[in-house]
Amino acid sequence: MSANVPTDICFSFSGLMQRGGGTGPHRDGWGICFYEGKGLRSFHDPDPSVSSAIAEFVKSHPIKSTLVISHIRQANVGGVNLENTHPFSRELWGYIWTYAHNGQLDKSLFDWPLQHYFPVGSTDSEYAFCWLMDQLRNKFPTKPQDQQPLSEFIHQCCEKLRAIGVFNMLLAESELLLAFNSTKLSWITRQAPFGEARLKDCDISVNFFNETSITDKVTVIATEPLTHDEQWQKIAVGELATFKLAELVNQQFA
Amino acid sequence: MSANVPTDICFSFSGLMQRGGGTGPHRDGWGICFYEGKGLRSFHDPDPSVSSAIAEFVKSHPIKSTLVISHIRQANVGGVNLENTHPFSRELWGYIWTYAHNGQLDKSLFDWPLQHYFPVGSTDSEYAFCWLMDQLRNKFPTKPQDQQPLSEFIHQCCEKLRAIGVFNMLLAESELLLAFNSTKLSWITRQAPFGEARLKDCDISVNFFNETSITDKVTVIATEPLTHDEQWQKIAVGELATFKLAELVNQQFA
Repeated sequence: MSANVPTDICFSFSGLMQRGGGTGPHRDGWGICFYEGKGLRSFHDPDPSVSSAIAEFVKSHPIKSTLVISHIRQANVGGVNLENTHPFSRELWGYIWTYAHNGQLDKSLFDWPLQHYFPVGSTDSEYAFCWLMDQLRNKFPTKPQDQQPLSEFIHQCCEKLRAIGVFNMLLAESELLLAFNSTKLSWITRQAPFGEARLKDCDISVNFFNETSITDKVTVIATEPLTHDEQWQKIAVGELATFKLAELVNQQFA
Repeated sequence: MSANVPTDICFSFSGLMQRGGGTGPHRDGWGICFYEGKGLRSFHDPDPSVSSAIAEFVKSHPIKSTLVISHIRQANVGGVNLENTHPFSRELWGYIWTYAHNGQLDKSLFDWPLQHYFPVGSTDSEYAFCWLMDQLRNKFPTKPQDQQPLSEFIHQCCEKLRAIGVFNMLLAESELLLAFNSTKLSWITRQAPFGEARLKDCDISVNFFNETSITDKVTVIATEPLTHDEQWQKIAVGELATFKLAELVNQQFA
């Protein structure tokens, strides 16, 4: 989620957590990270989100944020444990970068050299994140002023990863939310005039008109659309879409 | 807390959270990190722990761990916000290091050069942590096999920090818990025969005999002893004490 005002994600999260062992097979852990300024609140659990006490807490206590990344895991590489649970995070330039991956990469990835960042767990996903952060750090010793060269370079890195497998990715650093589509990724921006939406994964509807003010703008990105009754847009295969405060600010195409 | 079996910290945490705006003045946020293997569960909140919904959740849901670091903050340098809330964490050698600091350091600290790790927030505490991690990384490009040289070197770094202020510190990397005493730090190891203990900060008692098995060993370290009825030991001023699975495995003296 990327929003122009601190917004809670309870509605979307209620649908997503059902997919973690309920309506979907992603029962091998889940995690969610909320930015608050440059700070980060993280919740991780190797248990299925559908039956997780922490997920229940997150769902019932509205935490407001302008940038949230969440992930539910279906394990392929790496055991089901806390260190293999997304989102992963690392500090670069005094920002906490967070990252979640959907897909699987060829095991030749593990031969790609790492220099600054090393995986804590054993997943291909975290290894790819460490490699990506290494590339960024080497290319830009300090934070670039403009967002454009950053998106361009991250897109190049994502394309290298897509060349060895499936690499749907979310990446953030407190303001920017970068979404790379390797096979499937959809998004929607909600803004006035607000309407009603109904979750696909459980029997919850919301009328955003009652929950929002006229200037609010909230973008939600997901592997699969989370709602009926709304028009989700697809990110193109090989595209990196960059969002800032709910706005699509950059597109890099394959 | 350092323990030889996964142990919940609900009893000690019930006392500590009272000090965050209740029985103590440390109302400027709190945090707690639980290691689970090499993975880490973190909870941070810039609100006072005594009235925090997340603290209530942590207190009432036993999370078992062999290594826990918790901190309640009384702000001096840096605003009250999430990025300034301890414990701080950074990855080194594929381990997540966590750190909490009690005290205040001279502002000349901010002139000490940083190379690899940079603060996200504006506290002297996080700056000192980044400096410490930089020193470790430069001294040991890979993880040393033995714990002894690691404790020796970290002690040297802590002494440099103590020279410019008050630097009580907890530091961990999944197995080792390092505690440096600049002004005050006490610890206790609970093992068979287990007895009863009563919290100082609220009306809770526990009989560990009913909660533990005969081989359990649990060490708790705190700025001020958390209980009546028990004999806490003091760490010497200028000492770095290293614990592993509840055992005191190394002492480095001033």
